[in-house]
Amino acid sequence: MKGYLVSSGTELLLGQTVNTNATYLGQQLAGLGIDLHTVITIGDNLERLAEAIRQGGEAADLVIVSGGLGPTEDDISREALALALNITLQYHPTAKEVTERFFTRRGLDIPKVNERQFLAPSGAVILDNPFGTAPGVYYERHGKIYILLPGPPRELIPMFENELLPLLHNKSAGTVIFSRVLKVAGIGEPAAEAKIKDLIHSANPTVAPAAKRGEIHFRITAKAEGIEAAKNLIAPLEKAIRERLGSYVFGQDQDSLEGVVAGLLREKGLTIGVAESCTGGLVAHRLTNIPGSSDYFQLGIVAYHNLWKESLLNVSGEVLRAKGAVSPEVAIAMAKGIRAKANTSIGLSVTGIAGPGGATAEKPVGLVYSGIDFGDRQLVFKEQLVGSRQDIKWRSSQWALMQLYQELKKN
Amino acid sequence: MKGYLVSSGTELLLGQTVNTNATYLGQQLAGLGIDLHTVITIGDNLERLAEAIRQGGEAADLVIVSGGLGPTEDDISREALALALNITLQYHPTAKEVTERFFTRRGLDIPKVNERQFLAPSGAVILDNPFGTAPGVYYERHGKIYILLPGPPRELIPMFENELLPLLHNKSAGTVIFSRVLKVAGIGEPAAEAKIKDLIHSANPTVAPAAKRGEIHFRITAKAEGIEAAKNLIAPLEKAIRERLGSYVFGQDQDSLEGVVAGLLREKGLTIGVAESCTGGLVAHRLTNIPGSSDYFQLGIVAYHNLWKESLLNVSGEVLRAKGAVSPEVAIAMAKGIRAKANTSIGLSVTGIAGPGGATAEKPVGLVYSGIDFGDRQLVFKEQLVGSRQDIKWRSSQWALMQLYQELKKN
Repeated sequence: MKGYLVSSGTELLLGQTVNTNATYLGQQLAGLGIDLHTVITIGDNLERLAEAIRQGGEAADLVIVSGGLGPTEDDISREALALALNITLQYHPTAKEVTERFFTRRGLDIPKVNERQFLAPSGAVILDNPFGTAPGVYYERHGKIYILLPGPPRELIPMFENELLPLLHNKSAGTVIFSRVLKVAGIGEPAAEAKIKDLIHSANPTVAPAAKRGEIHFRITAKAEGIEAAKNLIAPLEKAIRERLGSYVFGQDQDSLEGVVAGLLREKGLTIGVAESCTGGLVAHRLTNIPGSSDYFQLGIVAYHNLWKESLLNVSGEVLRAKGAVSPEVAIAMAKGIRAKANTSIGLSVTGIAGPGGATAEKPVGLVYSGIDFGDRQLVFKEQLVGSRQDIKWRSSQWALMQLYQELKKN
Repeated sequence: MKGYLVSSGTELLLGQTVNTNATYLGQQLAGLGIDLHTVITIGDNLERLAEAIRQGGEAADLVIVSGGLGPTEDDISREALALALNITLQYHPTAKEVTERFFTRRGLDIPKVNERQFLAPSGAVILDNPFGTAPGVYYERHGKIYILLPGPPRELIPMFENELLPLLHNKSAGTVIFSRVLKVAGIGEPAAEAKIKDLIHSANPTVAPAAKRGEIHFRITAKAEGIEAAKNLIAPLEKAIRERLGSYVFGQDQDSLEGVVAGLLREKGLTIGVAESCTGGLVAHRLTNIPGSSDYFQLGIVAYHNLWKESLLNVSGEVLRAKGAVSPEVAIAMAKGIRAKANTSIGLSVTGIAGPGGATAEKPVGLVYSGIDFGDRQLVFKEQLVGSRQDIKWRSSQWALMQLYQELKKN
């Protein structure tokens, strides 16, 4: 089965928005064995958009249009589909329900302008959108499938996964491309690649490394007749990479480091308190991104000034003055302090210099210490990170969570 | 002048690489006043690539092909250009120099396979590439310009800026596109648009709304002969929008809400403490993302459990039991509590239900209160937000910062 993606939006042509929808849909379609043939980006122009849809219908079996489903006059994907196929749009009660629910949940009346979103081709299947006002459209005509999806990824992705995937699964068959991503942190990219260098260039499956902020992703991709065959191709290579990289591999595919740490805390029935300086609340934020985080997360203190390290975390003023706030001694004292204060199984701390200011000759920007107080042990880790202030905050949080992950795996 | 971009590479269609070249080139061409008409992504298929180049030559004055200039058999952009224009490729001594230098600098012989990179149309201008083996190609034919650029951004960007920009500057003469983005929060997209509806459809300058997470961006774009003329076209429209939207406009262009709030705090010499429940540290994280945040940020407490709201923020246990943690009374008490604890000019609090669990009949997921204790006033705001847990956390932080912004603007 062949696919054709039409991305609609002048902001994409002006380079104001990165077309991550094309990347996402490309991955998803490949996973379904649908061969994405072309991606074309068109501005908010009715004629040109209709022409692209028409060309898609000639070249492929499945045409997806992303964007242009909002309520404003710029949102012309519905009209372009009708023009391309020479059909008319009709009032669609299910579409109305989707849009209406968005407003009624907020206790609001539906603005007149949103009534454009009630329109769809007769016989279309409406795709639900719990995160926005735009209903999606699935429409078959002359043996081809036409799909309209909203532009914002937070609406497009759930609509694709919840509404479209079941419909498309029935349509596609045969050769599939399947990927497994192994996620690695706590080691630099060159060092990680050196460990698996000889595994990186097989033809099928392939291994492609990608450096992300504070982690490395190794994507193993196989092409085979059916998902099971592809998974069987991947399995031995995945096993070899996992063995070589050991506890640097924290997860796979959609796993996040905070999610994996949260899972271990919950599994072991442990609670945690976090004392942060340079990360400014980011570690607490990440640990509370996981649904149900109140099971393990108790208390976070962002003790930006030494005053609070002393009064709230019980760090000795003498140690602060003698060693400085960015020191292994203070990292440990903060971890012990938050654990005692919050009465948790674990105290985790981060103290460092996020920059661009605040560095001294002995303590450069990016110097970070992380402390763990867990059971009867106190551990401290030191790292020298690089990047912008936000990079260093992120990498510090990444690195503190990775140390905690490795500790939790040991016990 | 119209532009047409052909992105070549199967990895783009499979979603293994994000097409950031399209974003970069879109921005650059807009800055040159070249109107990018279409971006089309094609796999490594000679016929289809040639067809896309042919279509580009029909639709536009300038056709750029990115990718496909490497030495392997997948790299077919040179051949596709020749096929599209029905010309032949020839050995080009300058192309050879570019490729050769890459190897000789490393003390290597040129591999046989790289000899394909010596080929170019007769009469083409070769674009230098100090960062790779692939020479770029600039070629004019029948009044149209065809450009071949390498795919890796670290090669494409310097080649564009150093080699191509001077050539294109002479061609595009005069007309530029200039944009100003006004950033709006604390109001829904439909309500904001309704206020400026009649301003949205002028032809030049245009106004395009874009809904981001927790904010709306209105992009005003003008096309004119030179930057100053474009700015003059934008000014009256910008003024009108600012007047209509008033204090919902928090910033412009690269401004972030936390950056603007930080600027006001610093300007007024104010300090802040933050008490968070549902946002889990995100407000503190955002306020400490700004370099030099220790000027105004003092202390953050993530009081996830009621115990900490009582003991660290001095919220009355009676009120917690009677009204619940997600209530206006507790929001105010938290704001007062953190201000007193941290001894700051301002106390800011957020308490709410981020979901997906934790809701009751009276208190649905997304219900959020934010409190401000500032001067001799205590303010509390209520909002019903929607989305995933992370959306609600973000929108809550956005909305608390926006209330603070509006308070700071008043005083």
